[in-house]
Amino acid sequence: MKLNRLYSFLKADIEEIEKELEVAIQSDSSLLQEASLHLLQAGGKRIRPVFVLLSAKYGDYDINVVKHAAVSLELMHMASLVHDDVIDDAELRRGKPTIKAQWDNRVAMYTGDYIFARALEYMTHIRVPEAHRILSHTLVELCKGEIAQIQDKYRYDQHLRDYLLRIKRKTALLIAVSCQLGAISSGAPEEVHKRLFNFGYNVGMSYQIIDDILDLTSTEKELGKPAGSDLWQGNITLPVLYAMDVPEVKGKIIRVREESSPEEIQSVIEAIRGTDAIERSYALSKRYLDRALEDLDHLPANKVKRTLKNIANYIGKRKY
Amino acid sequence: MKLNRLYSFLKADIEEIEKELEVAIQSDSSLLQEASLHLLQAGGKRIRPVFVLLSAKYGDYDINVVKHAAVSLELMHMASLVHDDVIDDAELRRGKPTIKAQWDNRVAMYTGDYIFARALEYMTHIRVPEAHRILSHTLVELCKGEIAQIQDKYRYDQHLRDYLLRIKRKTALLIAVSCQLGAISSGAPEEVHKRLFNFGYNVGMSYQIIDDILDLTSTEKELGKPAGSDLWQGNITLPVLYAMDVPEVKGKIIRVREESSPEEIQSVIEAIRGTDAIERSYALSKRYLDRALEDLDHLPANKVKRTLKNIANYIGKRKY
Repeated sequence: MKLNRLYSFLKADIEEIEKELEVAIQSDSSLLQEASLHLLQAGGKRIRPVFVLLSAKYGDYDINVVKHAAVSLELMHMASLVHDDVIDDAELRRGKPTIKAQWDNRVAMYTGDYIFARALEYMTHIRVPEAHRILSHTLVELCKGEIAQIQDKYRYDQHLRDYLLRIKRKTALLIAVSCQLGAISSGAPEEVHKRLFNFGYNVGMSYQIIDDILDLTSTEKELGKPAGSDLWQGNITLPVLYAMDVPEVKGKIIRVREESSPEEIQSVIEAIRGTDAIERSYALSKRYLDRALEDLDHLPANKVKRTLKNIANYIGKRKY
Repeated sequence: MKLNRLYSFLKADIEEIEKELEVAIQSDSSLLQEASLHLLQAGGKRIRPVFVLLSAKYGDYDINVVKHAAVSLELMHMASLVHDDVIDDAELRRGKPTIKAQWDNRVAMYTGDYIFARALEYMTHIRVPEAHRILSHTLVELCKGEIAQIQDKYRYDQHLRDYLLRIKRKTALLIAVSCQLGAISSGAPEEVHKRLFNFGYNVGMSYQIIDDILDLTSTEKELGKPAGSDLWQGNITLPVLYAMDVPEVKGKIIRVREESSPEEIQSVIEAIRGTDAIERSYALSKRYLDRALEDLDHLPANKVKRTLKNIANYIGKRKY
């Protein structure tokens, strides 16, 4: 079962978003255009636009209005990936060379800036001042999350709350805001925005935890990037944090360096998988997923609600 | 005569902006806070806030409203400096080490992102949707200017129009928009926004040309960074472009590389100064300055207009 089967009734609108994304990154600068297009064609699940559109169904849905919010959120996500690649020194994303690997860090930085700017520009088509405040505040939080990630690298004395705050800022907030701004852009009632924001936040937390688990349980082929990348780069993810409860495993983890060999990384991954860290991480992801489903309980029962529920369940159970 | 003597009647409001700038970059992340504060304390002329405040005087001036636009524009400028330093591999700005030199490129990138985001967030206090559209569009153009600068490095076959478009996007637009958004945020009539936008654009063009001249005519002590930096980095500025009309000088210019020694750079600077390039550059700067003064002719004669005129003249004649 593929994710997009869950919202096939949105197919025409998703195609409209895809077209609009190409228009959005058009530029008279050939370098910029090439760099952005490259990123666009690498694909992605477009899960943020899907959340925008579904949430907008709770109000007065007009694709010609709502599409601006959907494009804006996807551009925001794309821009953060570009800057993420600069920071991660990543050479591959979704199995394709990153912008940074193909050009260089400087072009990647300005391409990211350009896409961020385009994202904000698109949102100005939504004539609700609140929408711009929310989006720019989200960008502020996103940056704080990124800086925290740099600061917390190889910091083994951190707590669960550090990790949770980081993934809130880096992932969950953008999904929460996709739901919220979808609802706002179609004039849905405030009570609905708030529920959908919480739903998106909980789905986002669940999603990122699964992502962090998969970094340790999937193959390079499934991930489109080397397994254990987070570990290698000193990102202390949830399973790593849990695994450190076992002193011998902690001893192995804190010896990981950027210079560590693939064999060393593999042996640390196996040590982590030998603990209950993966299982505990799945349990926490499940708790967020359950909360997301509870948030939906308060919304009217209809096709949109069923779809949101199916997507949440899909995300909470995906294998890669 | 110091620049700030020209607008001493704004002293209290400028101090308010300065305080607000400190609030704006406050963060619970110590790294981010330190990096931003460092930049703030390096100072600067705060010329963009001054243009915002002066332009706002053409409408219903309320410092508690207008200050958000002023802070936003200065933050926008600061963020672009941070990213500029990443791209320029600059180690000094205004005589102080850059964020990049003190920390590293990654922190500099996210600090810039953070400040951009804060800039956009501040502008959302101005309850005019047009203001957000203008600001995010300005950021789009700024990025295009930066990418063009990378692309045009060491490209000796470029034309005057390439240079002019680059400095428009990199410098003049942000000054134009400072004037425009100042006027918009105080509800000044549309005719006034447009005049002030043009005034700011022409002042900005004049300003950047002078800046590019000073890179070749000032000392390291006056500039706060090594003389001939642009030349060194392959940025083809107006005087360099004009000097290339002399074949022997062009021959020297196209041999400049990042590895060139300070002595080689000095000899190329002297060759350029031996042509009429500096004089012709001053003449073009003067033309923009004259146009800026013409734009003011159409505005009511008052203290604000006299001040704008004095600032424009000051900028057009500054020695460093």
